[in-house]
Amino acid sequence: MPDALSGLVVVDLTHVLAGPYCTMVLADLGADVIKIEPPHTGDDSRAYGPFIEEQNGGGRRYSGYYMSINRNKRNICLDLKTACGKEILREMIKKADIVVENFRPTTMEKLGFSFHELQSINPAIIYCSICGFGHDTLPEYSSRPAYDMIAQAFSGLMSMTGPVGGPPVRVGSSIGDILAGYQAVIGILAALRYREKTGEGQHVDISMVDGLVSVLENAVVRYTIDKEVPAPLGTAHPTITPFQAFMAADGKWIVIPIGNDALWQTFCTTIRRDDLFSNPEYLTNDLRTEHRETLIPIIEREMLKHTAQEWMEILDAHGLPYSPINSIDTVVADPNLRHRNMIVDIDQPRVGTITMTGSPFRMDKTPGSIRTPAPFLGENTVEILEQYLGYDRETISSLINERVVFTADCEDE
Amino acid sequence: MPDALSGLVVVDLTHVLAGPYCTMVLADLGADVIKIEPPHTGDDSRAYGPFIEEQNGGGRRYSGYYMSINRNKRNICLDLKTACGKEILREMIKKADIVVENFRPTTMEKLGFSFHELQSINPAIIYCSICGFGHDTLPEYSSRPAYDMIAQAFSGLMSMTGPVGGPPVRVGSSIGDILAGYQAVIGILAALRYREKTGEGQHVDISMVDGLVSVLENAVVRYTIDKEVPAPLGTAHPTITPFQAFMAADGKWIVIPIGNDALWQTFCTTIRRDDLFSNPEYLTNDLRTEHRETLIPIIEREMLKHTAQEWMEILDAHGLPYSPINSIDTVVADPNLRHRNMIVDIDQPRVGTITMTGSPFRMDKTPGSIRTPAPFLGENTVEILEQYLGYDRETISSLINERVVFTADCEDE
Repeated sequence: MPDALSGLVVVDLTHVLAGPYCTMVLADLGADVIKIEPPHTGDDSRAYGPFIEEQNGGGRRYSGYYMSINRNKRNICLDLKTACGKEILREMIKKADIVVENFRPTTMEKLGFSFHELQSINPAIIYCSICGFGHDTLPEYSSRPAYDMIAQAFSGLMSMTGPVGGPPVRVGSSIGDILAGYQAVIGILAALRYREKTGEGQHVDISMVDGLVSVLENAVVRYTIDKEVPAPLGTAHPTITPFQAFMAADGKWIVIPIGNDALWQTFCTTIRRDDLFSNPEYLTNDLRTEHRETLIPIIEREMLKHTAQEWMEILDAHGLPYSPINSIDTVVADPNLRHRNMIVDIDQPRVGTITMTGSPFRMDKTPGSIRTPAPFLGENTVEILEQYLGYDRETISSLINERVVFTADCEDE
Repeated sequence: MPDALSGLVVVDLTHVLAGPYCTMVLADLGADVIKIEPPHTGDDSRAYGPFIEEQNGGGRRYSGYYMSINRNKRNICLDLKTACGKEILREMIKKADIVVENFRPTTMEKLGFSFHELQSINPAIIYCSICGFGHDTLPEYSSRPAYDMIAQAFSGLMSMTGPVGGPPVRVGSSIGDILAGYQAVIGILAALRYREKTGEGQHVDISMVDGLVSVLENAVVRYTIDKEVPAPLGTAHPTITPFQAFMAADGKWIVIPIGNDALWQTFCTTIRRDDLFSNPEYLTNDLRTEHRETLIPIIEREMLKHTAQEWMEILDAHGLPYSPINSIDTVVADPNLRHRNMIVDIDQPRVGTITMTGSPFRMDKTPGSIRTPAPFLGENTVEILEQYLGYDRETISSLINERVVFTADCEDE
């Protein structure tokens, strides 16, 4: 049975996170992702921790960061600074469906592979660029460097995230990179449908700032309609109360989202404070939100009467919604996430088993899956030149000798 | 020129956020999304603020929340509790490509539209469900209620987000809902490719918890390899220093991500503290991260010497990366976001112009776009029954009289 995206070939010029995340999703869903990395260092993220040492005691260490977002890809190590290297890339693009990169906006042009050039090589190619502010920008934005951190700050998401009145807070993972990666996948798959109808490729221009602006949700209309500038609210919801985290007697936190008036009644009974339910100041959600400043301290005091575990059992018995604030050790051990293959063990050559995040695409016929571990630098160089480009052994040997391409063995040099 | 997804018909049974966000993306990219809403109230989110009053002084008010995530959709108001209503839904599914819903896992079965039933109606249908923990779960997870808040807490993301040592913090928008919406789009588009090869539909089972686990990034391998349980770090990066927000003399914040040693040298010169660069304790990124506790307070004091605006000019002149922490009013006014159609004005009948977020899919041939404003409840009921299902006027009239379907005029009753 074919994978959903089997048959698609992706030329992957990405590094670090946003781009590799996009091509990981394509690879998890079955595309043949051929990742091109520069000699010696490879993708910068091969130097990012956590590191895991090889099992044979040789002392080399490998990046768990790289491994976790480059599974299912093949790897060719190629020097794009050489004319021969560029020619190999041209031949790869000629036969590919998709090119993905996350350089700064001008880098592809400097390399000689602008979108115009890509189209002249292969008019059906779908070219996806991912960068901070986008390729098509006002002039003063075109050369601004951008990291995930800058996208989180510039997009407004950071201005709404954090404790009440407190310092700004970054979302604890690089959500600007990762979201742009997901959006890039959508743009690419949509462009493929257009290509089927017309035969034409196109440029999918993804920006990390745009990506995070797209998740601001009702914050934009709250400002444009009501002129309210949203501020950080800790764990609280702007318009639903009580709907936030509370600390229990043992110092652990649980979130208790009481989303409507029926749940409110049950909640008051559950915490043995029916007087709150009969208090007209707290009768409706709007009133509870209006009187948040008197109501929340009362609930906070009540929540200190039991441990988090006790509360969860009590809330569960009453059918109320709640969740512990799981730390990562608990998440990794969660049986349902294991059941859904969201936490998986991968047998990684040279270093052993690594536990990482799986694919969130649970589809009954073509689930996203991890078929192969992340490649070593140059691991598939020969196979790609031979099988994908049809080069003979002699040509490949001379390309290796001329240091245009590199194989995994070069690592041992 | 066709839109990327033109020709696809989506039967949209979604409400509030995760589901409607998914079908909004499909609609923005050109799919014909037919949203089914229940009589009288419609989608719950029609009751969510901010509200905007109708211009004719009639006093009715409409939800800006609903409008911002339901543009480009058509609307049929249909009572699915009636046998006749269910029959209309069956006929719609027979002719559709995709069904999307975000009920609790058992609701579709209770309605008589389990995946098994959907397949018997239309074997090529792609069925996408979005819920908290997924449809395919261990038994004890199957009936757990889930909101975005629960997904943020359960997934571990909340445990990594917040000030150092401080209380937990929710990402300021409903990222669990929205990310699941984006992932649902990817699952659907991938399933369409599989269907083209095989003629078969399938079930895309999206979980909000899975979705947020997929963005934990290196946090999972940091735990599984190094046994480090990631904790909240404010705006700081776990392994890069200095790479965080600093407060300027005027109390405004700017993020300054100094991502490598070359930038560090420039930064020290820029803030006139070359002594920091020559200090061996701060020579490399690893050393700076190790000595974060002495280094950061020094930089914090330096940053208090100029206003945010002055600092941004200084950093810009030295080519250093930075960003203001934009609040939503600044984001809405940003000229580049306007240029990229990420902030757009929509002419919304009855209420006037509304400024909202655009589509992040900037594609040169088929950009995501807003073609029609969000529909009133039942706005397209007659048109859908007539043009899509081929009902005659007489049948439609009797369905209206029998209160199986409702038109926008019913709102005036």
